[in-house]
Amino acid sequence: MSRKIRMGMVGGGRGAFIGAVHRMAAALDGQIELVCGAFSSDPEKSKASGEDFFLPPGRVYGSYAEMIEAEKKLPEGERMDFISIVTPNHVHFGPAKMALENGFHVVCDKPLSFNMEEALELEKLVKDTGLIFALTHNYTGYPMVKHAKAMVENGELGKIRKVVVEYPQGWLATRVEESGQKQADWRTDPKRSGIAGAMGDIGTHAENLAEYITGLRIKEICADLTAFVEGRKLDDDGNVLLRFDNGAKGVLHASQISVGEENNLNIRVYGEKGGIEWHQMEPNTLVAKWLDKPTQLLRTGVGELSPSSAAHTRIPAGHPEGYLEAFASIYRNFAYCVQARLAGKDPDPLYTDFPTVSDGVRGMRFIERVVASSNSSEKWLSFD
Amino acid sequence: MSRKIRMGMVGGGRGAFIGAVHRMAAALDGQIELVCGAFSSDPEKSKASGEDFFLPPGRVYGSYAEMIEAEKKLPEGERMDFISIVTPNHVHFGPAKMALENGFHVVCDKPLSFNMEEALELEKLVKDTGLIFALTHNYTGYPMVKHAKAMVENGELGKIRKVVVEYPQGWLATRVEESGQKQADWRTDPKRSGIAGAMGDIGTHAENLAEYITGLRIKEICADLTAFVEGRKLDDDGNVLLRFDNGAKGVLHASQISVGEENNLNIRVYGEKGGIEWHQMEPNTLVAKWLDKPTQLLRTGVGELSPSSAAHTRIPAGHPEGYLEAFASIYRNFAYCVQARLAGKDPDPLYTDFPTVSDGVRGMRFIERVVASSNSSEKWLSFD
Amino acid sequence: MSRKIRMGMVGGGRGAFIGAVHRMAAALDGQIELVCGAFSSDPEKSKASGEDFFLPPGRVYGSYAEMIEAEKKLPEGERMDFISIVTPNHVHFGPAKMALENGFHVVCDKPLSFNMEEALELEKLVKDTGLIFALTHNYTGYPMVKHAKAMVENGELGKIRKVVVEYPQGWLATRVEESGQKQADWRTDPKRSGIAGAMGDIGTHAENLAEYITGLRIKEICADLTAFVEGRKLDDDGNVLLRFDNGAKGVLHASQISVGEENNLNIRVYGEKGGIEWHQMEPNTLVAKWLDKPTQLLRTGVGELSPSSAAHTRIPAGHPEGYLEAFASIYRNFAYCVQARLAGKDPDPLYTDFPTVSDGVRGMRFIERVVASSNSSEKWLSFD
Amino acid sequence: MSRKIRMGMVGGGRGAFIGAVHRMAAALDGQIELVCGAFSSDPEKSKASGEDFFLPPGRVYGSYAEMIEAEKKLPEGERMDFISIVTPNHVHFGPAKMALENGFHVVCDKPLSFNMEEALELEKLVKDTGLIFALTHNYTGYPMVKHAKAMVENGELGKIRKVVVEYPQGWLATRVEESGQKQADWRTDPKRSGIAGAMGDIGTHAENLAEYITGLRIKEICADLTAFVEGRKLDDDGNVLLRFDNGAKGVLHASQISVGEENNLNIRVYGEKGGIEWHQMEPNTLVAKWLDKPTQLLRTGVGELSPSSAAHTRIPAGHPEGYLEAFASIYRNFAYCVQARLAGKDPDPLYTDFPTVSDGVRGMRFIERVVASSNSSEKWLSFD
Repeated sequence: MSRKIRMGMVGGGRGAFIGAVHRMAAALDGQIELVCGAFSSDPEKSKASGEDFFLPPGRVYGSYAEMIEAEKKLPEGERMDFISIVTPNHVHFGPAKMALENGFHVVCDKPLSFNMEEALELEKLVKDTGLIFALTHNYTGYPMVKHAKAMVENGELGKIRKVVVEYPQGWLATRVEESGQKQADWRTDPKRSGIAGAMGDIGTHAENLAEYITGLRIKEICADLTAFVEGRKLDDDGNVLLRFDNGAKGVLHASQISVGEENNLNIRVYGEKGGIEWHQMEPNTLVAKWLDKPTQLLRTGVGELSPSSAAHTRIPAGHPEGYLEAFASIYRNFAYCVQARLAGKDPDPLYTDFPTVSDGVRGMRFIERVVASSNSSEKWLSFD
Repeated sequence: MSRKIRMGMVGGGRGAFIGAVHRMAAALDGQIELVCGAFSSDPEKSKASGEDFFLPPGRVYGSYAEMIEAEKKLPEGERMDFISIVTPNHVHFGPAKMALENGFHVVCDKPLSFNMEEALELEKLVKDTGLIFALTHNYTGYPMVKHAKAMVENGELGKIRKVVVEYPQGWLATRVEESGQKQADWRTDPKRSGIAGAMGDIGTHAENLAEYITGLRIKEICADLTAFVEGRKLDDDGNVLLRFDNGAKGVLHASQISVGEENNLNIRVYGEKGGIEWHQMEPNTLVAKWLDKPTQLLRTGVGELSPSSAAHTRIPAGHPEGYLEAFASIYRNFAYCVQARLAGKDPDPLYTDFPTVSDGVRGMRFIERVVASSNSSEKWLSFD
Repeated sequence: MSRKIRMGMVGGGRGAFIGAVHRMAAALDGQIELVCGAFSSDPEKSKASGEDFFLPPGRVYGSYAEMIEAEKKLPEGERMDFISIVTPNHVHFGPAKMALENGFHVVCDKPLSFNMEEALELEKLVKDTGLIFALTHNYTGYPMVKHAKAMVENGELGKIRKVVVEYPQGWLATRVEESGQKQADWRTDPKRSGIAGAMGDIGTHAENLAEYITGLRIKEICADLTAFVEGRKLDDDGNVLLRFDNGAKGVLHASQISVGEENNLNIRVYGEKGGIEWHQMEPNTLVAKWLDKPTQLLRTGVGELSPSSAAHTRIPAGHPEGYLEAFASIYRNFAYCVQARLAGKDPDPLYTDFPTVSDGVRGMRFIERVVASSNSSEKWLSFD
Repeated sequence: MSRKIRMGMVGGGRGAFIGAVHRMAAALDGQIELVCGAFSSDPEKSKASGEDFFLPPGRVYGSYAEMIEAEKKLPEGERMDFISIVTPNHVHFGPAKMALENGFHVVCDKPLSFNMEEALELEKLVKDTGLIFALTHNYTGYPMVKHAKAMVENGELGKIRKVVVEYPQGWLATRVEESGQKQADWRTDPKRSGIAGAMGDIGTHAENLAEYITGLRIKEICADLTAFVEGRKLDDDGNVLLRFDNGAKGVLHASQISVGEENNLNIRVYGEKGGIEWHQMEPNTLVAKWLDKPTQLLRTGVGELSPSSAAHTRIPAGHPEGYLEAFASIYRNFAYCVQARLAGKDPDPLYTDFPTVSDGVRGMRFIERVVASSNSSEKWLSFD
């Protein structure tokens, strides 16, 4: 008999932004229940957070290690099925590795890890253990992103020639990391964020989106990264020329100093026969442009869309689905796959699409390569 | 000690649209758990639905009466706290009345009831029992609707002069009720929907939104309703002139035959000093227009918004919040109020704002009055 | 041999807004030259204005009467062909009548006249003289308005059911007429503007646009006009229910107190098979909505549009054509018709479409009827 | 005494797109009259075109050389004041040089010339003769572009950090040059277009716009140009990284294979305090984004805009001004300068702003450098 999947959370205590997002995303579809957590490295804070979530005190732990050890010993009908890692980048690897080594599935926030070595080790571990690993590159969960991918796959756009992908934000346009803003603090700190700033935080989303929709792989890059805000150690802006494996060309730029921009992730893809345009901030519209007929507004839930789009749409057309729903689709699909595993069945292929450890490795490679390119006087660096 | 609030659902079995919406909305914030349900008048279907939601068979009932009877007998720590009614209009009154009479709080879909008499009886029952009653006029749950209301209250727009509120849809432009489309079937049937079609289904949303944001009351109306589709018994389109109690004038129109429109609810309010414009399909932008300065785009989560707006915002700016989040805010606020009641405390006033039985009575009056006006050769009918 | 058509202007001296618009519109296509004018009732100002336009002093007159008398005596190869009347409403009739009586064609700003009697007399005069008369309801000159009309004519939308037409402005939201603002001054003065304010100035544009695009005639109206600004004698806002001769219903509202609105004329038309939406402030896009396919953005100059649209498009797609171009199309078509008349030929039917004295009479009827309806307690007044 | 300025046109006969644009732009403001022309290298076609424009046969010439020779001999009160060159790129230099050498002012379409050498020679000639030379980089004529420039100059945005400028078109996505499309034919032919395709035709507009608004100069570039359409000899797409002289970074991309794009020139500029965004296809809105207040929509003619913006606005707010008006502003300013020269006065500084031969030289340098960069394995090439 089917049941809800049990989640243990690492990080995401009171005041954390992304932890709350993960909890809402996990709860939305009624397939997952939060059963335990190590919500903070501060045990008091972890405990208080557990109360917020109505958890029994015995299932609130002081560290992820303690949690994994303790949960492992619980009976099958009670212990958690997977951990959700919502800590800063430098605390992804530890819990992920330990969870995998102890037989727990994993959902992990992006980017995958602190550096490339960790990423490759996790990839190997996932392969060796056969456990299920989801990486929350959540933007690919939107229904119209699914449809965009399907349009490319179906050849509706013809051979792809040009890709423009952008992720401008403005929230780091001043030195907010010195004001005690927690999100800014760790993201601008090489010790916790890794070798890249904006490129790691949001450039990887852009890279992931471009490769996801087009089905192409970026082959060469030429990058120019900048830390505009005085005293900042990591890039807060970057511009990258792209060359894809099929001969397509493109531009990727991401920024956290583009004053007034919120989360303006957007992409345009042009093929020989058609083009598409999608904006994360108005995610339910996919603009389709054609050689010989009027521009169309394809809309979530309207008319004949791809099965993959329909499978990720929850409500009738005209009722906007947002960020949390896209995020929730990753959790739901992950849950369906875990349930299928428990039932010894193959999961429904409509619901197996979510980013995995391999997407994470690709993202870490992207970080490594754009930083290298930016520091290089060579024009093109290979990306693969 | 605080705990999750326990929900029993009436209606909303497999294939029902609005039941799924209620379940997702109730689950999102982790304050409510579904513990039982009478999901269908067909016991087999109810049972199957209960399995979908991982409920124990003993908590899945064949009728709302059975559910209320059985739950009432369960111990305090186990039985449901409230029922959520997600059935067609003609099956709102029965379960609501019985729940109230047996000490259960109620969440009810809109419109409140099948007719005015039922509405008034429910209003009296809520008053007499002191129980908590929420009506899911969900569109007032959007953060920027909260802010619009706050702007009017703060006098930022000056005295209100003009209101234009619209709710065009196109899904009933042809005779889909004959194709077996379940949603269309009962909505166009006077026996289940009541005396109005489009005006009851979506006109009431427009009326509620206009009065909610402006804080004004419509005083007189002049309506022209039409059933455009051949053979249809209830209005599928209506145009209404409005006069408000402060002297403001306005227009309300709602339609289900406006081909190609999805759920294009929108409102414009103009005062002596400023105006606002909001569109449900892009709900995170509130356009503010001024006598003497540039038009502004006020955005969910950006800058200094009203406390009420902030209290209904879940994620950082630029990550679109949608219909389910607005819906969830009603459930969450309702849950907070029930929790406060359980704890014997006053609820936090920031979270007490949700539509109640009185909004429901007002909506039923609106239905009654627009139908009367449309049938009348008198120009103005009072609405109060 | 073909030649430029010669224009004499009445009104439109220094500082006048609409006179400059007419001159630019007349000049744009190289078919018309300004040869004389009575630009102001102040002879000094008229003379100075003539210098601005590089006219010989002898062709600058102190009054329209003087101009018509003098020009009539000039040889055929020199004298003006038509007068362009750009004065306030109460000075339309005089010059129009005298011009027609003396054999000159006429272009006249809208509304046609000060009252209905004048309108009917002008209509008769045009009929009797056979002269060419254009009324500058300029908004019907836009390429995508032409296409919208063609779509309705071709049956692409099916039988029309609903029309929503709006013209909100905000510039009269305060008592600017007391600040010396010339445009506001005469428009709010019943002695110069006539019996209506906003309804005459811009409501007639809305009425004209709705009937132009749909090819329908408004049969009954129910109006509610208001003068919101204290002390104002004419309506500055009005809401009107519409019933059309084919059974379609609709709403027309126009306002000059909708704070922050510029010239937001827009229209939505819904038929049984499709709908269209057009906004004057972004005039090169016509949104087409359909029962069973995605919404389309039809754009000036893109793809296969109607011959009438193409005939009113000057430049390649993506180069926005604006208000002056739409205005110029009326002048150009008028010029082509006068040239054809001079050549003794029939004009090319693609270029004969411009508003005439009959549209003007219809507009005056609209003014009369909405004012009557607003003052009446009867619900429906016939409009015909 | 002031008078209209007399224009002789080179090119722009029947069927030519850009010639018609120049004539409308020159006519709009009533400051210029077309007095003669060499409209085609085919004398019959030139003659027929002259008839279309109502020119006396004696002023219609078979070649520009003939025109310049003949006009020079006419009396001062009759002969042309300037020539307008609207031919393909390879026929800019000849007439421009000859006109300047014979004392005529010049308006020339962009890019300035066929190659760099010609550009420098023209620059020298303009300097030596002191004649007035306007280059029709028309997009800088829009009122909101003027205002954007003023905002940067006034420091409203703070120090500029990032610039994104794009010019996507789709009309060359297939091999239309083989279909007899005249515009495509010469633009894709190195013998007539020069060393660049898209980069020369529209990339230079993007470069000009970026430098015009920011007041910065591009210092280094890194380009990747592509001819996507098989058999095409010149680039139809290009992506360029930019570094500006103040340390700002940016991206410029232009394309003629971006299917479905019309003339989607747009720019975003971000400084330390604010950002702006402008789209040519909706040119009357300038979006202003701020660190600490809501996004604003600055609109042509609304509120307090810069004097330069007001001086290039013709009609009241909400009446869209388009491409032809922006184009006309170059002609009008040019005419005012010529009139001032004739009157021996200084021109009004509000009306002296139009692109000159120096902008043309800069554009030719841009063409040369992006082509060189694209062919180079060096990452950065200097641009100056």
